[in-house]
Amino acid sequence: MNKISPLQQARAAYAPKLPAALQNGAAVCVQEGGATTAVADVEKIQALFKSTFGSPVLTFAPGKGESKPAVNVGVILSGGQAPGGHNVIAGLFDGLKSMNKESRLFGFLKGPDGLVKNECIELTGDIIDAYRNTGGFDMIGSGRTKLEEEAQFIAARKSCETYGISALVIIGGDDSNTNACVLAEYFKSNGIPIQVIGCPKTIDGDLKNEWIEASFGFDTACRVYSELIGNIGRDANSAKKYWHFVKLMGRSASHIALECALQTQPNAAIISEEVAAKKMTLGQIVDNLAAIVAKRAANGMNFGVALIPEGLVEFIPEIKVLIAELNDLLAANATAVEVMDKADKVAFAAGKLSAASASVFKSLPAGIQMQLCNDRDPHGNVQVSLIETEKMLAEMVGTKLKAMKAEGTYKGKFATQTHFFGYEGRCAAPSNYDADYCYSLGFNAAALIGAGRTGYMSSVRNTMKPAAEWIAGGIPITMMLNMERRHGADKPVIRKALVELDGAPFTAFAANREAWAAETSFVYPGPIQYFGPSSVCDLVTKTLTLEKGGEL
Amino acid sequence: MNKISPLQQARAAYAPKLPAALQNGAAVCVQEGGATTAVADVEKIQALFKSTFGSPVLTFAPGKGESKPAVNVGVILSGGQAPGGHNVIAGLFDGLKSMNKESRLFGFLKGPDGLVKNECIELTGDIIDAYRNTGGFDMIGSGRTKLEEEAQFIAARKSCETYGISALVIIGGDDSNTNACVLAEYFKSNGIPIQVIGCPKTIDGDLKNEWIEASFGFDTACRVYSELIGNIGRDANSAKKYWHFVKLMGRSASHIALECALQTQPNAAIISEEVAAKKMTLGQIVDNLAAIVAKRAANGMNFGVALIPEGLVEFIPEIKVLIAELNDLLAANATAVEVMDKADKVAFAAGKLSAASASVFKSLPAGIQMQLCNDRDPHGNVQVSLIETEKMLAEMVGTKLKAMKAEGTYKGKFATQTHFFGYEGRCAAPSNYDADYCYSLGFNAAALIGAGRTGYMSSVRNTMKPAAEWIAGGIPITMMLNMERRHGADKPVIRKALVELDGAPFTAFAANREAWAAETSFVYPGPIQYFGPSSVCDLVTKTLTLEKGGEL
Repeated sequence: MNKISPLQQARAAYAPKLPAALQNGAAVCVQEGGATTAVADVEKIQALFKSTFGSPVLTFAPGKGESKPAVNVGVILSGGQAPGGHNVIAGLFDGLKSMNKESRLFGFLKGPDGLVKNECIELTGDIIDAYRNTGGFDMIGSGRTKLEEEAQFIAARKSCETYGISALVIIGGDDSNTNACVLAEYFKSNGIPIQVIGCPKTIDGDLKNEWIEASFGFDTACRVYSELIGNIGRDANSAKKYWHFVKLMGRSASHIALECALQTQPNAAIISEEVAAKKMTLGQIVDNLAAIVAKRAANGMNFGVALIPEGLVEFIPEIKVLIAELNDLLAANATAVEVMDKADKVAFAAGKLSAASASVFKSLPAGIQMQLCNDRDPHGNVQVSLIETEKMLAEMVGTKLKAMKAEGTYKGKFATQTHFFGYEGRCAAPSNYDADYCYSLGFNAAALIGAGRTGYMSSVRNTMKPAAEWIAGGIPITMMLNMERRHGADKPVIRKALVELDGAPFTAFAANREAWAAETSFVYPGPIQYFGPSSVCDLVTKTLTLEKGGEL
Repeated sequence: MNKISPLQQARAAYAPKLPAALQNGAAVCVQEGGATTAVADVEKIQALFKSTFGSPVLTFAPGKGESKPAVNVGVILSGGQAPGGHNVIAGLFDGLKSMNKESRLFGFLKGPDGLVKNECIELTGDIIDAYRNTGGFDMIGSGRTKLEEEAQFIAARKSCETYGISALVIIGGDDSNTNACVLAEYFKSNGIPIQVIGCPKTIDGDLKNEWIEASFGFDTACRVYSELIGNIGRDANSAKKYWHFVKLMGRSASHIALECALQTQPNAAIISEEVAAKKMTLGQIVDNLAAIVAKRAANGMNFGVALIPEGLVEFIPEIKVLIAELNDLLAANATAVEVMDKADKVAFAAGKLSAASASVFKSLPAGIQMQLCNDRDPHGNVQVSLIETEKMLAEMVGTKLKAMKAEGTYKGKFATQTHFFGYEGRCAAPSNYDADYCYSLGFNAAALIGAGRTGYMSSVRNTMKPAAEWIAGGIPITMMLNMERRHGADKPVIRKALVELDGAPFTAFAANREAWAAETSFVYPGPIQYFGPSSVCDLVTKTLTLEKGGEL
């Protein structure tokens, strides 16, 4: 066993809170709603999910503490790390044991791959205890293999049979839960007695809907990033000489950037969904930022903080076109390009692009041109996630300000620091919210297993309130599906939740951003606290607070 | 007033702990030691500091709570931000008021500049209360102007006379405290009745000696960085696919990198002082890192964490030579270079360097060559602090591993993520250690003023123990001086404390690093806790613990 930090030692003793429905064990009373449908493409979804489609929404009430037959259950962590994954597993373990002490839990290693390749360990009480309330997915590892092929399903069945496993819990994001649904349908329609339950995980916050009010990890990750942004804001306001451009993880969606903006009140925050809706060009984004810098400079403030969502470049129409052209161009000339040095590739690309894209390309900083032509994935495509948007914007805003200075519309100094936060928060020890929510999701998954259900997502709602008032239950995953075009084929998928421009979180941001830009209204959230008064430990994200009608 | 975060609200109520000597107010009993000398160049220092040289070391014992005449005192924050600066000011305020309620405190704005330009606000109880236990220097700002010229001293005297100020407290690093000493000597030798007291501040940890056991802010900043490194280590050990190269602030000294290594147990940490002592080349550093990567890969671990101190490149002999040559070369050809584009500058430099430096230059990644030729300060010099050493090493290790793979000495995958932490920690709210230490330093500075002393540094020692046992007193700054060559002239300066290779912290690191490299022994310190059990809130740095004979 590794050395344990003092905080980890103290935090291990935390007993996560449960909804009232689960406090008497996972053998709950099940209340069924009416038959359900799908969010769109109902007929196609129904045709694809003949056995699992239409299942009722389930709501749980406290059981009488009765026992259930012992079961063996398998659990998988799928996709990127998110704070609280270990607590889902601990909750699942405790939930299963609450129904029958003889039940056993197995962890498939390194994600879905472990299920397919039958790599597995039994998760005993000692192992579980060592990971309670810790961050990371290192208990059993995670992976990004997609469970989509029948050959994988057959292998999964065999793996389960090896250990007498009759239920699988898949902890993952939108795609992983879609796959859980497909696997549930496969098992059920083929008469294979293995239940499949999903749990909503992702720091990106893009797996949520009417029934799933939050994906776990979002709260903790946003608090870590907001701690750092707050510290940086304080530094900016102390040194008064830098503009800090901070890029934040979050894939396509800007939920993290928006939540961090609501927590820290920076001078600017770009929301990709707004850029797309307003069809903003890169030039407009740069001009907007430069205007904020100039306005603050006119008031003697040559410093500030700007937040940038990771997925931004994909939402800027002309950059999308440029990237597509570059992908085609470099693929078509692969042999010729391969032998060029980095600078020559840039010159080559600049000469071959369409006039419009060439002009966009030339407007980009040299370092970014270099990245676009050189950092390519194994399929030869530009690796959008590697583009240093924060540096690109900092440099382009600087260029714009130079022009404004020449015109006489800007007087000031502009020096920048750039940051990218992502890995810093994905494996933090879960906040109380995530520790409780995750433990409840896992315990609740045990309740769904005990209730004999399959193709359900574990659902814990009303989390704005104290945990005792949380609503536990299950939502048929088919209900969240629609058909989308993926890799040239129509596929059933859970609709990804992007930031809604008419939603309360964005509206609150939009109502305040001009004041935050002009003034210095930074808020300093500080680090996550695990002890002390409830006012500092038991917080709910601004996003959820606003979505549920609360105030900023 | 800005919006205040819940944590800031709750933390405002924290009452910092004081040494027993100060618990009865700042009117202490003063115990004088014998006459002192200087760390080196005694005669020269004595000649330069005729009036202040040789003052005794002071140790304080509790006073009887008597009052002293009211005084007006000025305070200045100098240099880079460090957590706890506001608490020094709060302690100073409370200390002064403890001796006489009519005493007043004035804050000079934006650092030493405010003293010279006479920009000042009175720090009332309301202002002080709003900043208790907060991070940042935003209460009065800071600045980097050096107080060195007689014209500045004359202006400083005038500013003080405007407000009837009879004592100045300068909160800063080694240079600022040297300047405080020079100013004290100037005032005293000219019969100007203004006392000058210094307080030891810097996150870099390089202002410490026999009498000053820690500079404030080092503890908090290292805890923020260690929180993030721990989270990243957990992510590395969960995803098992990235090597994370983390650069850490700290100027020339590697105290921060060493402390963070001791807290988090990474797979590698470079200590610049060792690189210099062993005259290691860049190639050797890269080879050492590549060997660790290869060894871990052979054991199935294609992931890891490596820490890199900010000042590294200045300690690598051949890079030092290269930078000096580049500085001369680009200065001598300024007109020709000015009109070149970025890539042409690189080609130009490569062609003009000495053979040895050209070979080093060509071994560097293209992006770093670009930075070396293009990011230059107003004097035309390479901006060493901007060199992305973490990316440089990641890329060079990758190149080395490719060669090893071709030779058959390495089988594995090597993908990297890079990080730079600095601004994230300089303005964090102070840990209990820094909150208490800073408040005590400030309160103690008031005691030095009450005792009528000048040219002293506020000293609080024995901080490994509970605060009541801390030893309060004053150390004559002249005692810490020696002569060093600066900008072509011999100057009296406080000797900068670098990492000592025979000191306990480095020795402990060196004894463990091979195991930490081969195994995965990451420790996850988690975020600073301000509430809860003393075991998680009242921590002392590993550096100080080891220096004082404690264990890792």
